[in-house]
Amino acid sequence: MRRKAKQKRVVARSIELIPVAGLPEIQPGDDLAALVHQTCRSNRKPLRSGDILVLAQKIVSKAEGALVDLRTVVPSDKALALAAKRTALRPELAGTANDPRFLEVVLQQSRRIVRDEHVLIVETHHGFVCANAGVDHSNVLGQDMVTVLPRDPDGAAASLTRDLRKLTGVSIAVIISDTFGRPWRLGLTNVAIGAAGLPVLLDLRGKRDRIRKPLQATVLAVADELAAAAGIVMGKADGIPAVIVRGYRFQASKQQAAAILRRAQEDLFR
Amino acid sequence: MRRKAKQKRVVARSIELIPVAGLPEIQPGDDLAALVHQTCRSNRKPLRSGDILVLAQKIVSKAEGALVDLRTVVPSDKALALAAKRTALRPELAGTANDPRFLEVVLQQSRRIVRDEHVLIVETHHGFVCANAGVDHSNVLGQDMVTVLPRDPDGAAASLTRDLRKLTGVSIAVIISDTFGRPWRLGLTNVAIGAAGLPVLLDLRGKRDRIRKPLQATVLAVADELAAAAGIVMGKADGIPAVIVRGYRFQASKQQAAAILRRAQEDLFR
Repeated sequence: MRRKAKQKRVVARSIELIPVAGLPEIQPGDDLAALVHQTCRSNRKPLRSGDILVLAQKIVSKAEGALVDLRTVVPSDKALALAAKRTALRPELAGTANDPRFLEVVLQQSRRIVRDEHVLIVETHHGFVCANAGVDHSNVLGQDMVTVLPRDPDGAAASLTRDLRKLTGVSIAVIISDTFGRPWRLGLTNVAIGAAGLPVLLDLRGKRDRIRKPLQATVLAVADELAAAAGIVMGKADGIPAVIVRGYRFQASKQQAAAILRRAQEDLFR
Repeated sequence: MRRKAKQKRVVARSIELIPVAGLPEIQPGDDLAALVHQTCRSNRKPLRSGDILVLAQKIVSKAEGALVDLRTVVPSDKALALAAKRTALRPELAGTANDPRFLEVVLQQSRRIVRDEHVLIVETHHGFVCANAGVDHSNVLGQDMVTVLPRDPDGAAASLTRDLRKLTGVSIAVIISDTFGRPWRLGLTNVAIGAAGLPVLLDLRGKRDRIRKPLQATVLAVADELAAAAGIVMGKADGIPAVIVRGYRFQASKQQAAAILRRAQEDLFR
């Protein structure tokens, strides 16, 4: 059976994912809001009211100085034992992710270890469940330098929205993102670790679908979907650590990315 | 410290997420490729070479007739026991997700039950780990009708790319998506359950980051990020079951969405 589509032209808005290309290498103390604002103007894509600015964790960490020089780290006995165990499990990672100094930083960033097998999954002090507590070598200048996650990603996002309002005169929502792995499915996806100005969870329970049946158990993790959308522009090796999502309609919200975290006692997989 | 952004205008491409609005209600036997092609033309947004068409599982299931009328289902003893247990756990879901006929369909779609607590997490015959095996009441005409996941989502995606090539004369990649929950984080996100014509996992191991350090453990689940990007346009109640992702650069690939599935023996959380 072949049917004709409706001929009426339906108007629905497109969403644009705009790379903020050309940011300089970010250094501790940099005014990230000002640098993004300036770069968007140089690129002739100035920020607009209702834009969502997605920033990679890496540049937020660098700006706030969330960097550790491994040469200054003295590994604890626990880190040394973990390094020995991990080197036995995955000798190919020697020198980086199995470095006892690196593992010491991971332990300092963690509330507890969730799994310690071929990957090291921890729960960070923020409550994120992720590999290596988000401690990362890549895209950090200096062979022994690593970034740790921002101390308070939701607070950093809120502060950036205030700075951006001063610079632009309009409301810009902010998501701070990082790439996390997940059970059951391979590969990393970009998720929201900090957010300000937009809903992070969209609760559709009680709403009805297009044919008037009530939607059940439908809470959409929109901040994670927005972060993932930005992720396809960021890539990883490309050096696009900031992306504007333009055209997504939302109501301003005081929700924080912390609201996405499932409480441990309600989590069947921890 | 405040620094100036580089003044050079950096050219990098934006990505556009275009709703395919105005599709008719899809029925078994419909030619989905033709309906999407026609609707895109009516919307004056014809498909172009290099576009990625993301289709919600719901319309693919409807077109292939992957629908079950619960009035024809006789629940097994296992389904009856599961219904009794689930009704005790979550009485508020009575009549829908605790219906023994619904649970019978879920069991028929499943290889095994992964968790049976406040949500029912199964592994489907395809290998997807998700709630209720993707069996769903919403946006399906008829009070007792449910959709099940397409029998072979990768095959359906491949077949759609062939049909779209015939209709348009150009290469269109296809992702079939569904909204799944995940451990640790609340809310559903849209993920790829079928794919054709594009890489689903982008392996950056061995590549170097922008400052020449080797990237480690970096495999990006790009098909899931593309599905999530489409998810912000689809919403859930809005009836936009098809979205074009335009401007994402990729090399044609024979990878299938099944490649995203972590093998059970390598999964720390199953």
